[in-house]
Amino acid sequence: MIQEKNYAIGLDLGGTKILAALIDEQGRIVHKTTCPTLAAEGQEAVIGRILSSVETVLTESGITVTSVRGVGIATAGVIDTKANKVLYANNLGWEHVAIGQIVSERFGLPVQLINDANAAAVAEWVFGAGKGTDNVIYVTVSTGVGAGFISDGRLITGKGDSAGEFGHISIDPDGPPCACGNRGCLENYVSGPTLAKIARTRLANGEKSAFLSQYPLEQITAKEIGEGVMQGDPLCKDIHLRASRDLGAGITSLIHLFNPELIVVGGGVMTTGDYLFAETEKVVRERAISRMAEQVRLVRSSLGGEAGVLGAAGLFLHRNHQPVRALTQLQT
Amino acid sequence: MIQEKNYAIGLDLGGTKILAALIDEQGRIVHKTTCPTLAAEGQEAVIGRILSSVETVLTESGITVTSVRGVGIATAGVIDTKANKVLYANNLGWEHVAIGQIVSERFGLPVQLINDANAAAVAEWVFGAGKGTDNVIYVTVSTGVGAGFISDGRLITGKGDSAGEFGHISIDPDGPPCACGNRGCLENYVSGPTLAKIARTRLANGEKSAFLSQYPLEQITAKEIGEGVMQGDPLCKDIHLRASRDLGAGITSLIHLFNPELIVVGGGVMTTGDYLFAETEKVVRERAISRMAEQVRLVRSSLGGEAGVLGAAGLFLHRNHQPVRALTQLQT
Repeated sequence: MIQEKNYAIGLDLGGTKILAALIDEQGRIVHKTTCPTLAAEGQEAVIGRILSSVETVLTESGITVTSVRGVGIATAGVIDTKANKVLYANNLGWEHVAIGQIVSERFGLPVQLINDANAAAVAEWVFGAGKGTDNVIYVTVSTGVGAGFISDGRLITGKGDSAGEFGHISIDPDGPPCACGNRGCLENYVSGPTLAKIARTRLANGEKSAFLSQYPLEQITAKEIGEGVMQGDPLCKDIHLRASRDLGAGITSLIHLFNPELIVVGGGVMTTGDYLFAETEKVVRERAISRMAEQVRLVRSSLGGEAGVLGAAGLFLHRNHQPVRALTQLQT
Repeated sequence: MIQEKNYAIGLDLGGTKILAALIDEQGRIVHKTTCPTLAAEGQEAVIGRILSSVETVLTESGITVTSVRGVGIATAGVIDTKANKVLYANNLGWEHVAIGQIVSERFGLPVQLINDANAAAVAEWVFGAGKGTDNVIYVTVSTGVGAGFISDGRLITGKGDSAGEFGHISIDPDGPPCACGNRGCLENYVSGPTLAKIARTRLANGEKSAFLSQYPLEQITAKEIGEGVMQGDPLCKDIHLRASRDLGAGITSLIHLFNPELIVVGGGVMTTGDYLFAETEKVVRERAISRMAEQVRLVRSSLGGEAGVLGAAGLFLHRNHQPVRALTQLQT
């Protein structure tokens, strides 16, 4: 009897928590488990918790390892998807950790690392709004601005797994210097911290906001601005309107470069109401070359906090079976 | 005896001429033939000349059709690479011409259409500076500004074969409207016609140029500006210096999005001396995220007028054998 391998494990390795989930071909989470990362306890302790998490979803779900195609690990930081190593991860304090090999040897399963934004892109493509399509872009607007690109049914990783730095395209070559070395980076116009800084500056300069004046200046974040927008506060709406112009211009550039079928917009800044998304889409529809604008849908992400595990597992569950270049088969 | 298929035919279908060439696995042009397009004589006449050109390279080279892997056809205009049709081509006056099928049925060979910029990218990747790499970007600065992307060993075409509109990324969301519908498009800062317009405006506003004053205003093109740069003319150099800032910013954005190993810069505007290229590279080296800047080489294109046929044939001659998504096998 041939054992059908209908499942994959997705693991989301974050600075705060580790989420592991057993996922089936339809993208259903069969079982999941969460534990704190506790990075301060050191690398060995975190690796131990990663191995236990995988063990736990297998044991508690009752699915045997022989039914599992592989383990996808989504994480922030700089990774090497060919060697399946974490090269640097500030939030974990890791340098050159061959976590792929460790997990693979323990369970006798193929393992694939993937970065957060790419995992969200794969999740949308395999299980979300991009199901059935081959050209999907995921854009995240959060503390940073990033993207993941699926083109012609393949994840774009680039030479050193660093593709997707959407927040660091320049929308003004004469603009302010960015910490990355470039000038006028999109991230300095539309990220969460940037919007908060703009609000504080405008209030300090004497602009009025009945909504934001409830808070001390230093407590204002993108979340409060988003709530102000939902309350109809004019200053908050104006901040989102200006952000939509720059974000819309950036997304229009992506459309012209990639000619995608679908753009999914997610991230914390987008979770506060519809206004920012709607205005951004308006800019895109006005500006994008009509032939390409007609071919693309824009939607908001609906996968939420499980996008990481869904995308990591999705690497093994796509109908193409091998959507990434180097799906390493590290069998013991 | 197994017949080895070591050749491919590349055909460059332009508004002025048709160039067909038989090319071997090393990228050597074994035989080539050129004829005028004479588009005004109508579609049937042009198709006839395409078929004759292929016939001619076969006959005159003495290579039998059984040694040929396929025919690649590079052309401008909007194409459908899955159906191998030219959808619209202004320079030919064509609409919905299934040239792929026509050529395939006549010679019993697979045929693949490709657009000009993508053909140049494939040529550089398979036979030029990108040989042996998997992540190559070709940028052309000419009448328009465009690009072709090879990522993880595959040509990026997008949903409707329109990927690569590098000239229409916005480097200023408040910039002047572009004919494409967007604002502040890169093409409006660095293309050949734009540089000529800038020169004429600056001269008309009273700026001096010993070199350009030889010419009537309306005769000044990017070519004269490039010659002025080579003669050390300060106004011409300043025009190229400003263009390098914008082109460098645009290329930096491409590096951040694609994390390429190689960027090849070509097109008529780049053929006039080293200054523009050198200054553009300087901007990129200053601005790109260091991790990605260290992984990328920038070079000038060296393939010249044969890039179209080399890239079209290169689709069939790459070591991967199938670098495009839909290498249609249209056998009779």
